[in-house]
Amino acid sequence: MTGKPLLRVGILTVSDRASQGVYQDLSGPAVRAYLEGALPYRLAFRHLLVPDEVEAIQRGILDLAASSGLVVTTGGTGPAPRDVTPEATLPLLEKPMPGLPEAIRAASLRDTPTAILYRGVAGVRGRSLVLNLPGNPKAIPTCLGAVLPALPALLRLIGALEEGPGLAPGPQEEEGPRG
Amino acid sequence: MTGKPLLRVGILTVSDRASQGVYQDLSGPAVRAYLEGALPYRLAFRHLLVPDEVEAIQRGILDLAASSGLVVTTGGTGPAPRDVTPEATLPLLEKPMPGLPEAIRAASLRDTPTAILYRGVAGVRGRSLVLNLPGNPKAIPTCLGAVLPALPALLRLIGALEEGPGLAPGPQEEEGPRG
Amino acid sequence: MTGKPLLRVGILTVSDRASQGVYQDLSGPAVRAYLEGALPYRLAFRHLLVPDEVEAIQRGILDLAASSGLVVTTGGTGPAPRDVTPEATLPLLEKPMPGLPEAIRAASLRDTPTAILYRGVAGVRGRSLVLNLPGNPKAIPTCLGAVLPALPALLRLIGALEEGPGLAPGPQEEEGPRG
Repeated sequence: MTGKPLLRVGILTVSDRASQGVYQDLSGPAVRAYLEGALPYRLAFRHLLVPDEVEAIQRGILDLAASSGLVVTTGGTGPAPRDVTPEATLPLLEKPMPGLPEAIRAASLRDTPTAILYRGVAGVRGRSLVLNLPGNPKAIPTCLGAVLPALPALLRLIGALEEGPGLAPGPQEEEGPRG
Repeated sequence: MTGKPLLRVGILTVSDRASQGVYQDLSGPAVRAYLEGALPYRLAFRHLLVPDEVEAIQRGILDLAASSGLVVTTGGTGPAPRDVTPEATLPLLEKPMPGLPEAIRAASLRDTPTAILYRGVAGVRGRSLVLNLPGNPKAIPTCLGAVLPALPALLRLIGALEEGPGLAPGPQEEEGPRG
Repeated sequence: MTGKPLLRVGILTVSDRASQGVYQDLSGPAVRAYLEGALPYRLAFRHLLVPDEVEAIQRGILDLAASSGLVVTTGGTGPAPRDVTPEATLPLLEKPMPGLPEAIRAASLRDTPTAILYRGVAGVRGRSLVLNLPGNPKAIPTCLGAVLPALPALLRLIGALEEGPGLAPGPQEEEGPRG
């Protein structure tokens, strides 16, 4: 039962209002809740909250990617003036993976015609997959569900999973029960 | 009844032959006819005609984007040597919107197997949406129809719509009745 | 019967193991077998084999594109650390054709959920179409089948086909019967 690999997950909520405390971050917890129910790994989460600023987003992604096999951002993927998450993310990707946002748009389009406005990017940086999701918490399950069937193969191929019982969780991280 | 927002639309026909007067521009008028029947705004059109040259296309886009909330180009999106509209357009986009050409290809593919050859790009520049369409007038309704359901939200988010009755149409523009 | 155009096809197998002779290249022959059965041209093939190194891949593509109307690479399109074919290919493309990998992913996704991990690119260089395919030989028919309906128009538009009986095949090339 200790044989399940460990996946460290970094969640970056990108939102001017949530980062100012004007309203509560709902999409970050929605990402976490979905992944806890869907991924067959021990999971350790870190969560950061930044405003819609390119530099702050990049610092957040770099920080999380250095310690996580999966970095999910949420927010800032639309066409509005403050939406700059794709522009912040793209230069940090060593290997863009256009099939992921493509699958997210295709799955979301079944429910909502504005799904084609999603400009998120995804790709590999080191041993991390970085994935932009939209900021609407209700959209999170559909978006993550669109890429979920390919995630285990992807995470394994890039070395994102930590095997074996000897690995302690990093600082600031919570980890689920080891069973 | 005067409450409908104003949308200024720039149409750029990209065609060596049409710009030389060798044949009549049919796709520019097809874009206008479609938008007049489909968009719930007061519409004011400008129309330019340029050859398949990167510099001429870029000057046309910049001119139209400076005064329009929506810039639609038609022509030059294929793989032939003279087709350079995407290469001319991409550097002018501040926020590429890959979901739009993706939706255009998906919708067009139902009728025509060569739809995958469409290389058009789309994205935001300032308060304008710039959208490349193919040059075939018969393809215009399918292509615009593929993005139409998301256009109102998109135009509103980028500030492309001009609200209120106090705004006069710009020079060289024709405007529909204000009802 | 001699009127069929000639298409020179360059196949580039990208594989560390196949280039070291560790295992047999199966995907290169799979590309050839598929094209021989599917394309209505006289076909002349060249085949190169390189390791998963950006420089070697680029040399191979440049060599083949200089003498072929169609260059198909196979291998190195996934997210693994050694998968660098898209990164090697993209800078060599004068006109990226995003609709082709998009169609390949859409067609492959019907059978396999990991199809969204395919990161291949396609585009025009000079008079050649360059197309990245995955390395799995079983995936070749589905991938080529996804773009096949548009290939004749595409090859004609970029000048990839050699018309007329007066053209001799290049050095190192085998050619099918002229009928």
